[in-house]
Amino acid sequence: MDFIKKPMAIENRSMEIIAPYLSKLNLTPEQVKVYSRMIHAAGDVEYAPIIRMSADAIEEGMKALQSGCDIFTDVEMVRTGINKRKLASFGGSVHCRVADPEVAAEAKVQGITRSMQAMRSFGQALNGNIVAIGNAPTALFEVLRLIREEGIKPACVVGIPVGFVGAADSKKALAQTSLVPYITVEGTKGGSPIAVAAINAMMYLIDNTRD
Amino acid sequence: MDFIKKPMAIENRSMEIIAPYLSKLNLTPEQVKVYSRMIHAAGDVEYAPIIRMSADAIEEGMKALQSGCDIFTDVEMVRTGINKRKLASFGGSVHCRVADPEVAAEAKVQGITRSMQAMRSFGQALNGNIVAIGNAPTALFEVLRLIREEGIKPACVVGIPVGFVGAADSKKALAQTSLVPYITVEGTKGGSPIAVAAINAMMYLIDNTRD
Repeated sequence: MDFIKKPMAIENRSMEIIAPYLSKLNLTPEQVKVYSRMIHAAGDVEYAPIIRMSADAIEEGMKALQSGCDIFTDVEMVRTGINKRKLASFGGSVHCRVADPEVAAEAKVQGITRSMQAMRSFGQALNGNIVAIGNAPTALFEVLRLIREEGIKPACVVGIPVGFVGAADSKKALAQTSLVPYITVEGTKGGSPIAVAAINAMMYLIDNTRD
Repeated sequence: MDFIKKPMAIENRSMEIIAPYLSKLNLTPEQVKVYSRMIHAAGDVEYAPIIRMSADAIEEGMKALQSGCDIFTDVEMVRTGINKRKLASFGGSVHCRVADPEVAAEAKVQGITRSMQAMRSFGQALNGNIVAIGNAPTALFEVLRLIREEGIKPACVVGIPVGFVGAADSKKALAQTSLVPYITVEGTKGGSPIAVAAINAMMYLIDNTRD
């Protein structure tokens, strides 16, 4: 059983394998880093042509992270995956209310998902911070409504819900807005590790030490 | 913004959309449930023909879960995603040592990944329990070594590491063993949500209440 066992060697080799799939996409060096980690997280080079981001997304995301912004997410798996030690070194922390009993109770009353109600309950707290959606299309639809109807302005929305019911539509709506910097993926694919990868990639662009 | 907002309606509609992709695969009703949740978690119907499991995997996994087995995983995202309330209702809990300082220190000494060292440190504790690998090929290679060289016998190995360095090889080795029931995915794709989906699907086959 001969295989690479050193973490940084594995990561570097992985990035080399991904590189040719990005060479024709006309990306900035920062975009290459973010795309590469997203593709790496899915183990799927077919992400290369379906990743979508506004031209200002990485710059605005990095600026917010560096100044200590918080991250608001729909699911605990995103909170778990984010490098929280790194985030804390900038001054930020992660918020997720999907398991909050009050959110669950209100969601039941409203007949909506818990992650949608969780985003609604954050409201103004999202201003200037990063939103990371890794699972629920309903959560992303709600964030877009808050932005459009209530004038809320996150620094960047990493919106990568997954699945066959609403995910593609919610991500299309995100990619069509000019109201907020965004990172997303076209179609049904996505999920927590992909959203986490985009966030961690932006943090490693600011500071690439891992301990 | 007209979209489905009720959790069970979203899940049921999703399963309907996935069904045609499974109709030619000659699956048992239990396999259809496990495949469907895995495909749902990735938002990717191209998983349908690359999911691999031994004929006894679901039965052995369910039997172990029902009798209160524990789950041993390589990464915290898998622990987070597993329905731990449901698992506890059967008597089981989840173990993950990737963030254990002793594991990190020993991994550094050995020049291997932390998740590989974490699996090695579990050793005999894996007997009769379920292993869930959602990230690290090195962790799956180590579990296979423990099975082959040290006679360790988990009830079922859900081995779905992801990426371009070792993942495909480690999953191929898992699918070629006759020493343990397994669930895996061919090739580079995979990840924590897919491993979680397989585990949760087996639990919902035993008891489909969600509260």
